[in-house]
Amino acid sequence: MQPGVEWIAADWGTTNLRLWAMAADDRVLARRASEEGMGRLSPECYEQALIRMVGDWLPEGRVTPVLICGMAGARQGWVEAGYRPVPAHPLGLPLTRVPTSDPRISVTILPGLSQESPADVMRGEETQIAGALALRPGLAGPLCLPGTHSKWAEVEAGRVIRFTSYPTGELFALLSEKSVLRHGLTGEGEDWSAFDAAVAATIAAPARVWAELFPLRAAFLLHGLPAAAGRSRLSGLLIGAELAAAEPRGEVTLIGAGPLMRRYARALRIAGVTTRQIEAEDAVLAGLSAARALWKEAV
Amino acid sequence: MQPGVEWIAADWGTTNLRLWAMAADDRVLARRASEEGMGRLSPECYEQALIRMVGDWLPEGRVTPVLICGMAGARQGWVEAGYRPVPAHPLGLPLTRVPTSDPRISVTILPGLSQESPADVMRGEETQIAGALALRPGLAGPLCLPGTHSKWAEVEAGRVIRFTSYPTGELFALLSEKSVLRHGLTGEGEDWSAFDAAVAATIAAPARVWAELFPLRAAFLLHGLPAAAGRSRLSGLLIGAELAAAEPRGEVTLIGAGPLMRRYARALRIAGVTTRQIEAEDAVLAGLSAARALWKEAV
Repeated sequence: MQPGVEWIAADWGTTNLRLWAMAADDRVLARRASEEGMGRLSPECYEQALIRMVGDWLPEGRVTPVLICGMAGARQGWVEAGYRPVPAHPLGLPLTRVPTSDPRISVTILPGLSQESPADVMRGEETQIAGALALRPGLAGPLCLPGTHSKWAEVEAGRVIRFTSYPTGELFALLSEKSVLRHGLTGEGEDWSAFDAAVAATIAAPARVWAELFPLRAAFLLHGLPAAAGRSRLSGLLIGAELAAAEPRGEVTLIGAGPLMRRYARALRIAGVTTRQIEAEDAVLAGLSAARALWKEAV
Repeated sequence: MQPGVEWIAADWGTTNLRLWAMAADDRVLARRASEEGMGRLSPECYEQALIRMVGDWLPEGRVTPVLICGMAGARQGWVEAGYRPVPAHPLGLPLTRVPTSDPRISVTILPGLSQESPADVMRGEETQIAGALALRPGLAGPLCLPGTHSKWAEVEAGRVIRFTSYPTGELFALLSEKSVLRHGLTGEGEDWSAFDAAVAATIAAPARVWAELFPLRAAFLLHGLPAAAGRSRLSGLLIGAELAAAEPRGEVTLIGAGPLMRRYARALRIAGVTTRQIEAEDAVLAGLSAARALWKEAV
C-alpha cells in the first residue's frame, strides 16, 4: 500500500507505460514504468496491465482517478480519444471516460491534437507542451520534442499554432536494425565527431543526405568503418535532415530526455540555434497535473 | 533435356535468381527464375539451389560453364568475389572460380565495382552497364539503374568513372511495410497524379521531404487518404529525393524493368530530363555474354 495516493498520472505511449502515484498537492509519491506500450496491447488487455502496475497503490473504499495521455487514446489503443484541431490550447475537452470493471479506478484519456493541412496528429506531446507552459509561464516560439516521431510545434500566447512530425527516430531504428546498413551498425558507443560532421554536412546540403546513407554500408565493407562511427553518423544525417526541414530560428525549447535530448541539443547548437531544455518527465507531469486541476470534478 | 546448351548465364541478386540457358552463339534457349536470392541462402545451399534450377539443362559427358553476376559474390553470398575500384571498365579480372561437387558444372562469379570515396559498391549492375555498352556502342553520360539500392553511374569512354547508390527501394519497402505509415498504405493500384505532385514538390524543395512522410499517416487517419494515393505519394517523395540528390542533366540512360522503370522515366521527365531506356534483362544478358566472349578459355 502507498499511503496518500489521491490520483494516478499516466503517460501511455507506443512503447512505454509510465505511471506516477500523485498526492493531493501533486507531489510524486511513487513512480513505475513498463514496456507494455500501445504497440504490445490489445484493447481488452489495458485494464489488466494497469491494475498489475498500480493495484497496490490504490486505497480501498474510494475511487482513484487515473488520468492518461498518449497513444492509449489512439484508434489502435484502449479507447479512441479523438483529436482537437489546432490552433488550440494544448489541453482541452472532450475528455474520454474509459469503461472499467475494477471499482477502485476511474480512467480518463486526454485528447490529442490534429492539424488539417498539412495533415498531422500528436498524442501525448500536447500534454508535455501544456506542462512546459505551466513550468515556464509566457513560453512561446518553436518547441522540439524528439522521439520516434519527433514533433516541432509553434506556440503563441499559450496556444499551439501549428506543428510538424518527423519520423526520425523510426527511420533510425528501421535503417540501423532492418536495412542492409544493419550489418555494420551493431554495437554500443558514440562517436561525437562523426555525429557533428554529419549534422553539419546535412544542414549545409540537405538534398545530399540520400546519397550519404548507402556509403555507411560501403564504408563498413571497404574500410571497416567502426559501428559507433557508423551509428553516430547515421543519427547525425537523420537529425540534420530533420533540422534542415524544420528550419529552426531564434531559441528552441527542447523537451526530451537522456541521450536523445543531448543529441538534439548538440545538433541545434551546430545549426546555430540556442536551446532551453525541459525534462520530458517534468513536462508530462506538469501537464497531467494542469489537466487534473482544470477538470478535478470531471475526472 | 534442353539441347544445345553451351553455357549458363546467371544474375543472382539479393532477392531473385535469374538463369538463362545459352547457345554457342549466345541465343537464349530457355530462361528460369526463382526467389532463392542471396538473402535466403547460406553458402552451402547455393550449389543445390542452382542444380535444382538448371539440372535438366545440363548435357551429360561435358562440363557446362555457369557465369554469375550479382550478390552471390558478396561476403554473405556463395563465395566472395571481390571488387574492382573505379574508374574501370565495367568488366574485368579477377574472376572467382567457385568449388563445386557436381562434375557437370564449372561456376565462375564476376567481381563487383567499388569506389574509395565516397565509399560505394555495386554487384551485378556493373554487368548491366557492360551490357548497355555492348548494346549501344559509344554510350556515355549518366546511367540510372533503379532498384532496392538504385545506382547512378557516370560512364566515359567505356569506363565507369564514379557512381552513387541510393537505398530508395529499401526505404520504400521499410516505410510502407514496417513503419507506422504501413496502416494506411496496404493495397494495390497507382495514383499517378499523387506520384507526379510528390516528385515535383520534392525536386523543388528537397529538404522538405522529411516533413512530408508523417503526414501520409495523418492524412489517412484524418481524411481517409486512399492507400493507392498514399503509396504513390510515398514513392514520388522518395524517388524525387533521389533525383534531387543525383542532379541528373542532359540525357539519362535508364536500365530497368516493369513498373519501377516506368516510375523513374516519369519522374525524370518531371525533372526535365530525357531518357533512353534499356531493359534490364537485355542489359544483363549482353553483359554476361560479353564477359563470356572475353574469357571463353577461362570460364
